[in-house]
Amino acid sequence: MLSKLQIRTITSLHHKKFRREHGLFIVEGIKSVMEFVHSDYIVQHVFYTAQAAAKFVKIPQNIKSDEISEQELIRISSLKAPQGVLALVSIPSYPALRSNALSGDFTLVLDDIQDPGNLGTIIRTAEWFGFKRVVCSAGTVDTYNPKVVQASMGSLARMEIHYTDIAELIAHTPLPVFGAVLEGMPIYETDFGHEGLIILGNEGSGINAAILPHLKHRVTIPRVGRAESLNVAVSAALFCAELARKRNREGDNSPVSTDL
Amino acid sequence: MLSKLQIRTITSLHHKKFRREHGLFIVEGIKSVMEFVHSDYIVQHVFYTAQAAAKFVKIPQNIKSDEISEQELIRISSLKAPQGVLALVSIPSYPALRSNALSGDFTLVLDDIQDPGNLGTIIRTAEWFGFKRVVCSAGTVDTYNPKVVQASMGSLARMEIHYTDIAELIAHTPLPVFGAVLEGMPIYETDFGHEGLIILGNEGSGINAAILPHLKHRVTIPRVGRAESLNVAVSAALFCAELARKRNREGDNSPVSTDL
Repeated sequence: MLSKLQIRTITSLHHKKFRREHGLFIVEGIKSVMEFVHSDYIVQHVFYTAQAAAKFVKIPQNIKSDEISEQELIRISSLKAPQGVLALVSIPSYPALRSNALSGDFTLVLDDIQDPGNLGTIIRTAEWFGFKRVVCSAGTVDTYNPKVVQASMGSLARMEIHYTDIAELIAHTPLPVFGAVLEGMPIYETDFGHEGLIILGNEGSGINAAILPHLKHRVTIPRVGRAESLNVAVSAALFCAELARKRNREGDNSPVSTDL
Repeated sequence: MLSKLQIRTITSLHHKKFRREHGLFIVEGIKSVMEFVHSDYIVQHVFYTAQAAAKFVKIPQNIKSDEISEQELIRISSLKAPQGVLALVSIPSYPALRSNALSGDFTLVLDDIQDPGNLGTIIRTAEWFGFKRVVCSAGTVDTYNPKVVQASMGSLARMEIHYTDIAELIAHTPLPVFGAVLEGMPIYETDFGHEGLIILGNEGSGINAAILPHLKHRVTIPRVGRAESLNVAVSAALFCAELARKRNREGDNSPVSTDL
């Protein structure tokens, strides 16, 4: 049975302030919890209902785990429909991003993304397309928000998520900076080279005015119909797909040119 | 001031059953409401706060409109943060889809999409890429659900959304049927021709088993990393983008080949 203190502590983790204070966040659902168990994250405690335990893959013995009632789970869950398992996981601390850490690769840089579903979907999509990390502005929604964790469908367990002053990062990076904007060069005609930062702006207001002058390339997903804009997770996906495709094509070509 | 009956009627429209009963749905936010005002939809009534009226583009005189208080808006709104304007709009009745209605074009066909945010985003994205309509299975979330309307960002005002028995449609269509699946031919190598149905499956379980045998082409978005799947609105976007791109390329080429 959960103590009052445990219930209070766990529900406090629905809020960013207390996540930071306790250094913990919530992961829910058997699949997601198992992805964190098998990742580099430190899972502190797993709570599960008897019903969930039946379908359960065994969790390692060194992880503390307790059976709780459905009613208890409902009290601590961040979901409307709790999924039988809830884990408390330690928030990792990454070393500060060094300016050369992003060389030789493409990195999504999120400028004040507000919607947790969007951030989670971007993390999931970025992993699908082989990206290693996502860099977020300090004003972007917290990646340990339960809705972000949920929408990332386990991908958060394997992706590095950094928060930093992106205006600073962009002003000093030696990498080419690409920004997703409504009026720019069509994405399919853009030469992305082999490395760079891809900036995606806020849902309502796009890329911050302070960052716009630093864009080396303003890139657009060509519009055919009348919709005014694309959802930011959709834009991110189209950039990820295009970069993965170009990378793959170059990968196909390089052995040939080496042979010559 | 709103009567009790008005408040009860409007809040009942948060639920599908009462939307069908009244033949009405809710649109919120100045931008979205204006898109419906300037569409083929019949806007029955617009409610607005004094604060919103200040930033308001004038609504046509033949549309009934009333100023209400912030408190009244909060009572009838479907949003956590009401946006100053709420309109009641008539649900249109489309003629039943005839089998040849979808010829010569590509159409997204949604098989039991559950999440309103996903459906709204798919409608918005499809419009961006020049699609005219979306066909939904009877089990797909209602397109007049306030969260779908919201996520479509006004695109619902210009897109035709049909609900039909898609197993029936797919079994009898003369069009090629493409399905988004995890193990299929890479989307970039697929010859889509110039028309077809693109089937996107449910968030959790994918395309229905009853439909799978009718797929002429099983198409996959190539995965690079370890994420288990893509969000369905993301998959839909990647199909839309690819089809728009192929259509555009053919458009570019055809005058040349005609000249020859």
